[in-house]
Amino acid sequence: MRLHYVTSNEKKFREAELILHREPHTLPHLEFIHAHIDLDELQGMPEDIITHKTNRAFEEVQAPVIVDDISFGLNALKGLPGPYIKTFLYTIYPEGLWELASHYEDRRCSASCYIGLRLPHEDQCHVFSGHIEGTVVEPRGSQHCGRISWNNIIVPDGSTRTAAEMTLDEFSQISPRNKALSQLKEFLHNMESQN
Amino acid sequence: MRLHYVTSNEKKFREAELILHREPHTLPHLEFIHAHIDLDELQGMPEDIITHKTNRAFEEVQAPVIVDDISFGLNALKGLPGPYIKTFLYTIYPEGLWELASHYEDRRCSASCYIGLRLPHEDQCHVFSGHIEGTVVEPRGSQHCGRISWNNIIVPDGSTRTAAEMTLDEFSQISPRNKALSQLKEFLHNMESQN
Repeated sequence: MRLHYVTSNEKKFREAELILHREPHTLPHLEFIHAHIDLDELQGMPEDIITHKTNRAFEEVQAPVIVDDISFGLNALKGLPGPYIKTFLYTIYPEGLWELASHYEDRRCSASCYIGLRLPHEDQCHVFSGHIEGTVVEPRGSQHCGRISWNNIIVPDGSTRTAAEMTLDEFSQISPRNKALSQLKEFLHNMESQN
Repeated sequence: MRLHYVTSNEKKFREAELILHREPHTLPHLEFIHAHIDLDELQGMPEDIITHKTNRAFEEVQAPVIVDDISFGLNALKGLPGPYIKTFLYTIYPEGLWELASHYEDRRCSASCYIGLRLPHEDQCHVFSGHIEGTVVEPRGSQHCGRISWNNIIVPDGSTRTAAEMTLDEFSQISPRNKALSQLKEFLHNMESQN
C-alpha cells in the first residue's frame, strides 16, 4: 500500500520515512510518498483540527494519507496559543514568544504533535499523538527543521538544553512528533501483521 | 429577497436587523432571517476566514447569507491574537488578556469586524469591514452582547470609557460591527435601487 505523507516540509517527510522504515519493524509492504499540499486548517481543538485536515487531505489526494499538526502552549496562558502556534511563531517569532512568557512567573509549557491517518475503505481517520513538557527560555541553539520553530525556546523536562541545542538524535528520543510517529508505526505494523 | 443572517447570537442578529432596516434606507424589499448555525472557521488571514465562512454558510443554507467575524489584536503582539480572539477570551478571559497586555509598554489595540455577503447567482462573496483602535485597560463595565467579549478592556480612541461602559447607543456610533454593517447596508441599498 502507498501512503501519502502530506507536508509542505520535505525534511520532515524524510525524517518520518526513516523512522517508519527503521528496524525492527520496517513495514516492508508500505511505501511512503511525499505529498506537498497546502491544506486549509480549521480553528478549534487540536483533535478536531487534525481530523478535518486529514479528511481534507484524503479528499484531495484520493488515496491513503498521513497528516501531522503541532500545538505549543504556555501554562500561564492555559495552553495558548496551542494550535495557533505557527501564526504566533511567524508573527512575533520565538523571541516574541519568549518575551511574552518571560513576563509570567510560571514559564512551564508543553508541545504536542497530532498525526492523522486515513485508510482506504474507512470513513474516518485514526489520530495518534505525542507530548512533551518543559520550560520556556530565551532562544538558544539553531532550528532542526530549518524553519522557525518553538525548538529553541523549550528546555524539555530532564534536560538543561533547549531542543534546538540537542543533536537531532537526542531530540528524536523525546520529540512529540517522533512519539506520535511511533504510535502510528505500531498501528501500521499490527495492520501489516494481520494481513 | 430573503437574506439569512448566520450567527449563534440572537441578540447580535436583532441589532443588525434594526440597523439594516433603519431610516433613511429601510431596504423594504429585503427580509432578514436569523439562521442559527455553527460554522467551521479556518485558520488564516481575516479576509480568508470570512470568505470561507460565508461560502460554507451559503452551501449549508442554500440561500443568500450574511456572516460576520471579529478580530482583536494587540499592537505589542503585532495584531495577535487577531482572528483567534474568541479562543483567547474563552480560555483566559478578558482579565487574562488585560494581564497579558499590561506587561507591555505599548498597550495599543485594534478591533475589526468582517461581514461576508453571498448572493444568489454569484460565485463569490462580498466582504465589508469596520475597524476601531484604542488602548487596553483593566476590565471595566458590563458586556453589551451578554457574552464574554473584548468590550470591557478597550478604551476606544477619543473616549475615556471602555466600550462596555458606554451605552449601547454610544458604542453603536463607533462599533466595528456597525461600521461594517453600514457598508453592507449601502451596498444592499444600491442593489435595491438598481433593480
